[in-house]
Parts: sequence; C-alpha cells; structure tokens
Amino acid sequence: MRHTISVLVENKFGVLARVAGLFSARGYNIASLAVSETLTPDISYMTIVVEAKDERVLEQIKKQLNKLIDVISVTDFTKKEHLDRELVLVKVRYGAKEKTKLESIAKKFSATVVKCKADCLIIQAVGDQLQIKGLLEALGHYTIQELIRTGRIALTY
Amino acid sequence: MRHTISVLVENKFGVLARVAGLFSARGYNIASLAVSETLTPDISYMTIVVEAKDERVLEQIKKQLNKLIDVISVTDFTKKEHLDRELVLVKVRYGAKEKTKLESIAKKFSATVVKCKADCLIIQAVGDQLQIKGLLEALGHYTIQELIRTGRIALTY
Repeated sequence: MRHTISVLVENKFGVLARVAGLFSARGYNIASLAVSETLTPDISYMTIVVEAKDERVLEQIKKQLNKLIDVISVTDFTKKEHLDRELVLVKVRYGAKEKTKLESIAKKFSATVVKCKADCLIIQAVGDQLQIKGLLEALGHYTIQELIRTGRIALTY
Repeated sequence: MRHTISVLVENKFGVLARVAGLFSARGYNIASLAVSETLTPDISYMTIVVEAKDERVLEQIKKQLNKLIDVISVTDFTKKEHLDRELVLVKVRYGAKEKTKLESIAKKFSATVVKCKADCLIIQAVGDQLQIKGLLEALGHYTIQELIRTGRIALTY
C-alpha cells in the first residue's frame, strides 16, 4: 500500500542523499518524491510517497527518518484528513478529428490546454490520485508523446 | 543561476540515492526535485532545479549524470523553448475582513480556493516561476500557516 509522508528537513549539505540513502539501504520503495524550498531559506520540505507492505514497515520508515539528524519533523498522512494533489503535463499528438475530443477530455478533468502546436497539445492538470488516474486512462487512446508528473503533495485541512 | 534539468532513469534499486549522492559529493546544490513514475513501470522521471554558478559547472553536472549507469537521458532546458510549471498549496489563516481579499488574490493568479474552514483556506495554484513568486509575494501580508510546493517540472513545446 502507498502512503504519503512529508518530512521537514534542515537544508544542510547532503540531506537529500542521506534521506535517499536511508530508503535505498533498507529497501523501502519510493513511488514519488517532491523536494522544494519553504519560506525559510534553510529549511526544505519533502513529500514522499512510499510503498509499505504493512503498518510495521511504515512505522519503521518514520522511526528511521526521525533518527536522521537533519530531520525536523515527519508527518504521516495515512490516518489524517488531508488534501492531496499532483500536477501533470501531458503532451499529446493528435489527428485531424481528435482535437475537439481532447479538449473535451481536458474540460471534463478541469485541465488546461496550455499550448497548441500544429499537431500536438499540452494538457496541464491538477488533481488527486483518482482524478489523475482518470485523466491518464481517458488519454490512453491517444498518442502520448511525453508525460511529466510532479509527484504528490499533501496538506492537512 | 538556476537551471532546470530532467533525467530519465531506469527505476532500479537505489537510483535516487546514486543521483542524490552525485550532487552532494560534488557540491552541486539542488533547489528542487520532482521524481515520479512514467507510463513505463520500470522507468522514472526526475526534474531537478540546480544552482550552477556558470556554464562549466552545468556541463559538469550533465556529464556526471550521463555517466551514471541507470541514466537513460538528460535534458537541459536552459536553451530550449519550454514550458515550466509548479504546483503550490498555501494554507492561509485569515481575519474577518481578509477572506474577500484572499479570494481576489487567488482569482488574480488563476488559483483555486480548495477548502475553506472557519478561519483558514487553502489556495491551490499552478504557474511558472514568476507567477508563483507573484502569488507568494501577494500572500506575504497574510498569515501563511503552511506552504507546500512540488518543485518545478518542464516540457519542451
């Protein structure tokens, strides 16, 4: 099962390597990772989606993260009421009759058609896991040239 | 100067730790990182925003990344016509008279007000660097309780 964890870290040299090393050394599989700055320059924020086969493994991961010296706090969203979102950019090539259909798919998923070229358009969509999955399934019948995702971020209400 | 680089990697065990290790061992500073899955289960996609003081350092980074065995390709967006986007979630606490103002800031930046509670709302915004910077400056006068960013992703036109 996949779990969303966020980690607030001191933006010290090599902190990302230490966190990544912890996951790889212990065989924890990262499905997605988003690392970015916060309003405080010396603090970074990581949102990690991790696969853990059971509760015990998830607890181990949190414990190990908390042991790292640069980690300020660890939040596990599993049992928290929260909002999760991901941004995806999908470049789709289309044939003569497909453009209108693609635009209606974008509309259905509240996505934006960012830039159109002669035979290709970029769909920019934000949503939770189910919405993004739905969009990608709907686009599955078209020629996806590129698909770029940010990975999930989350926030408690 | 900051540069956006994307790296397509084989989703092998420890690949993230190897990439992060390369950056930390050589003193390259990562401003943001987004790692996610692609449509091909055994391939992952990383978008890295890196600070490089000059062209030479940027070339070194790309060369070192290309040397890693799990790296399939490296794209440097610096001189490419491209689209860059980031998703941010900002939780803002507001006083009695501020709600309407916050909603008009959200509207100005084409952001969505995702969920409102009694005295707090979450603004969900997607934009390029300038737009996100503008939004955060506009929100600077309010009480930001939490700010979560995905880090930048990019796509050539």
